Amino acid sequence: MKLLRDKVMEEGIVLSDQVLKVDSFLNHQMDPVLMKEVGREFTRRFAGEQITKVLTIESSGIAPAIMTALELGVPMIFARKHKSLTLRDNILVEKVYSFTKKETNEITVSKKFLCPEDRVLIIDDFLANGEAAFGLARIVEQIGAKVAGIGIVIEKAFQPGGRLLQEAGYQVESLVRVASLENGTVTFAEEVIS
Amino acid sequence: MKLLRDKVMEEGIVLSDQVLKVDSFLNHQMDPVLMKEVGREFTRRFAGEQITKVLTIESSGIAPAIMTALELGVPMIFARKHKSLTLRDNILVEKVYSFTKKETNEITVSKKFLCPEDRVLIIDDFLANGEAAFGLARIVEQIGAKVAGIGIVIEKAFQPGGRLLQEAGYQVESLVRVASLENGTVTFAEEVIS
Repeated sequence: MKLLRDKVMEEGIVLSDQVLKVDSFLNHQMDPVLMKEVGREFTRRFAGEQITKVLTIESSGIAPAIMTALELGVPMIFARKHKSLTLRDNILVEKVYSFTKKETNEITVSKKFLCPEDRVLIIDDFLANGEAAFGLARIVEQIGAKVAGIGIVIEKAFQPGGRLLQEAGYQVESLVRVASLENGTVTFAEEVIS
Repeated sequence: MKLLRDKVMEEGIVLSDQVLKVDSFLNHQMDPVLMKEVGREFTRRFAGEQITKVLTIESSGIAPAIMTALELGVPMIFARKHKSLTLRDNILVEKVYSFTKKETNEITVSKKFLCPEDRVLIIDDFLANGEAAFGLARIVEQIGAKVAGIGIVIEKAFQPGGRLLQEAGYQVESLVRVASLENGTVTFAEEVIS
């Protein structure tokens, strides 16, 4: 997605070989026009998948997910992140390890918003090791629903998440794929210019 | 806002005299069409205020805020919530007490996304005691920018936040105002049917 790649080039800040900061348009300040285009692009890429729900995780996934849900004409659900839980009635819970924060969180979704007939599109802002996406997929599968696809705004393709998700059989669509952040420079994975 | 009031009547669950659960369309599952209409309504109510930024707080404020920002054609920023912070460089920090969770959080916004010339529209999903809205307003004022208005999706008008914010001189626009949750029933404050 050219618009997004241009934005990464212009405003992305390479903090290290592993960390790309995009807080001017995706993680803290958000560009609503770009988010709308992201929603359109996910809708185009998952056309024909008969999506019934969009699922994301708080907080940075919410804006791209609500725009995608608007475009698809379906509800959006955001999973909540907790340190740990006592109350477990009527909720779906999965553990997700964060490599960035070096901690395990529990993510939760209320059972009443997913049913076995659902075809769920998972949306997230970043894909690195795939922990969050796998956690969301397990939530969907716990209830017997189908993961119809996984849409990622920025994939760090030098980390294994994308490959692992594809090996697990999921259709992963990343709007930009970053091949490397070495030498303080963003290098994109080869892709058709869209 | 009739659409929103209807939704509260149809799907809102009164958990106690103080607590209204709206997790089917605002706090967990979200209705994207409703969020778009919420964005349009805030834009209509704050027309002429020359808004330059929309500011909200994670997580449930993000969807109404991004839709408002899209309609206004300005960037959106979401403040982050933390338990407490050590790193304080280049960020604006305010303490916010949560009556619901009975804890004090620090909310933060990066200094680089606000400037003294900004006219900021604060958006939040709920208004009760006004702690979050006051915290966001102090963030805006710390940098010398102007709070151009405060837009609330659902105000619990039986709690003091709305009155306190207006007494402090802010223009507060709540799309629905709940006067009471007594006897398990939602009663709305009198307002012109829009």
